Amino acid sequence: MNKQITSPKYQELLQQATVNINGEIIPASDAKISIFDRGFLYGDSIYEVTYGEDYHLLHFDEHIRRLKRSADLIGMNLFISEQEIIENTLNTLRSSHLKDCYVRIIITRGETEMSLDPNTSTKNNLIIIVKPKPIYPASLYQHGIKLAIVSVLRNDRKATNPSAKSGNYLNNVMAMAEAREKGFEDAIMINQNGNITEGTTFNVWMIRNGIIQTAPATSGLLEGITRQIILDLCEEQRLPCKIENFTPEDILKADEAFITSSTRGIIPVAQINDKLYSPKRPIIQNLTQYFQAKILEHKKNKKYYYGP
Amino acid sequence: MNKQITSPKYQELLQQATVNINGEIIPASDAKISIFDRGFLYGDSIYEVTYGEDYHLLHFDEHIRRLKRSADLIGMNLFISEQEIIENTLNTLRSSHLKDCYVRIIITRGETEMSLDPNTSTKNNLIIIVKPKPIYPASLYQHGIKLAIVSVLRNDRKATNPSAKSGNYLNNVMAMAEAREKGFEDAIMINQNGNITEGTTFNVWMIRNGIIQTAPATSGLLEGITRQIILDLCEEQRLPCKIENFTPEDILKADEAFITSSTRGIIPVAQINDKLYSPKRPIIQNLTQYFQAKILEHKKNKKYYYGP
Repeated sequence: MNKQITSPKYQELLQQATVNINGEIIPASDAKISIFDRGFLYGDSIYEVTYGEDYHLLHFDEHIRRLKRSADLIGMNLFISEQEIIENTLNTLRSSHLKDCYVRIIITRGETEMSLDPNTSTKNNLIIIVKPKPIYPASLYQHGIKLAIVSVLRNDRKATNPSAKSGNYLNNVMAMAEAREKGFEDAIMINQNGNITEGTTFNVWMIRNGIIQTAPATSGLLEGITRQIILDLCEEQRLPCKIENFTPEDILKADEAFITSSTRGIIPVAQINDKLYSPKRPIIQNLTQYFQAKILEHKKNKKYYYGP
Repeated sequence: MNKQITSPKYQELLQQATVNINGEIIPASDAKISIFDRGFLYGDSIYEVTYGEDYHLLHFDEHIRRLKRSADLIGMNLFISEQEIIENTLNTLRSSHLKDCYVRIIITRGETEMSLDPNTSTKNNLIIIVKPKPIYPASLYQHGIKLAIVSVLRNDRKATNPSAKSGNYLNNVMAMAEAREKGFEDAIMINQNGNITEGTTFNVWMIRNGIIQTAPATSGLLEGITRQIILDLCEEQRLPCKIENFTPEDILKADEAFITSSTRGIIPVAQINDKLYSPKRPIIQNLTQYFQAKILEHKKNKKYYYGP
C-alpha cells in the first residue's frame, strides 16, 4: 500500500489551501477529521461553496441562510451559532491572504459511537476550506460547455432531497463519471418523470422563443444562489422568464441554453448530447451583462470584506 | 465552540476500538483522515460490516466479494489487492485481542484536489475498525423488534444504487430518524412503486400461508450476506420460499415477519406500524434453529481464525 501516489495537483492544493477545523487554523496537510465523524461514515454533513473576490465574500448571507435550510431539511441540530460560522469563515479568509478564492464550509453531525440514529449527535464539526479560486478559461465563457444528459437519475426528493446540500454526493459523482466517459465535460440529470432537474454542481436553463426557463425545486434540485439572482434580475428587467418543468426534448430544441453556479456565474452551453447550440446567444449575452453589473454592485456592499 | 461535548458512549468506543489506516494500527482517538478524502467530502466510499465470533471472522469471503461488487457498481478503482485487505483485517483483529467483535472495512477513492470526477483518483484509503460486538439483549430475539414503515423512500437504483454498500447513508439516517420520532426502534423503506425494499441496515422478510418471502434486488436493496444464507437454507431444507415484491399491505397481513443482518442474524418482528405479530412464530423458530446450526458449522471452518 506504500506504492500509492497522490496527484501533483493535490500536492499543490495542500500548499495553497487554508483550513479551519472547529475554530483552529491548521496546515492543509495536517487537516484531518476523526474516522468516527458522521460525515466520513455516512455522508451525514451539509456544506456550502461560495467565493471571495477582491477581498469580498460574495452573497454570504444567502449561503448562510441555505446552510441553515439544509440543516433543517436533514434535521441536523446546530450547536454552532451563525455568528461563529461567519467569524470563523472571515478568520480563515484573512489567514489565507487570498484576494480571490474558493470557500467551502462543511458542518457534520460530529463523531458517533457508530449509531445511525442522528439524535445521538451532541456536537458538530465545522470545517472551512479556503483555496485559490479556480481560473476558468475565458474560452469556456466564449465557446460554452459541453454537457451530456446521463442515464444516472437525480436522487428523488422523497429519498435523499437534493434541496439539502449534503455530503451524499455519490449521485453527482456517478453522473459526472458517465459524462466524462462519453467525452463530455459535465452532466445533466433527469428525474423519474423524465424531466430535467440540474447538473452535478449547477442549475440548468433554456431559452425558447425569447422565454428564459429553469426547472422548479419540485423536480429535485438545489435552489442555487445564482439561480435566484437570475430570477430576480429577470423580474427587475422584465425579461420573460418561467419556472416550469421541461424535458430533454425541450432543451434539445431550445434556441439557447446556459448553466449557473456560485463559483462560475453564467456559462453558456455549446452542446448537449448531439445538439450544437448557435454561438450567437443574444439573450444570454444580455443576461450576462446584467449579471456582471449586479455582481459589481454587490461588491460595493463591504459587509463581508476580509482584506488588509 | 469549546462547549461542544461528546457522549460517554463515544469515549468508551475510543477506549475499546482498534483502528487500522492504510496498514498502520492507530489508537482510536488519533484515527483521523484528511478532510480532502473523497469519503468525507462526497461519501465516495464503500464498506462492509461483519463480525468475529470465538476468534473466527465469519463469512469473510462473501463480504470481500460484495466489497468488490460495490467497487464495480460505483466504478471505483481498487489499488489495494484482495490479499492486502484480508491481511490488514486479520492484523487488526489480532491487535484487538477481541474474541467477539464488530468489524467495519471502509475503502475510499482517496484524497481529491476537489474535483468531482472520480477518474482523478489515483489511490484508495483503507480504514478498518474493530470494536466489541454490541450485545443485543436476548429479549430482542425473544420479543422481537418494533418497526415503522416510513415516508422516506429508499434511494432509487437508477440514482444511488442501494446494491452498492456506499458511504452515502443519509437516506438511511433520515429513515431511522423518522422511525425513532414515531417511537419505533427502526425503519422499513418502500420504493417509488410502493413496494417494500429493506430496512436501514437489514433485509426484511414476511411469512404468509407458510411461504417465506423477501424482496428482489430490483426493488432497491442491498443483497445481504445473511439474506443469501437464508435463501440457501430454504432450498436445502425445502422450505417454501420466494423472492418477489410485496407491499406494506402484504406484510401487515402476514403471519410472521423477521429481519436479517450480518451482525444480528435473524430477529423476529414484534410490530410494524399498528400491526402486532403473534409471539408464536413456528416458521421463524424453525428457521432460526437451522440458521444457528449453519453458523456453528461455518465456525468449524478455521479459514479466518485470528485467535492466539
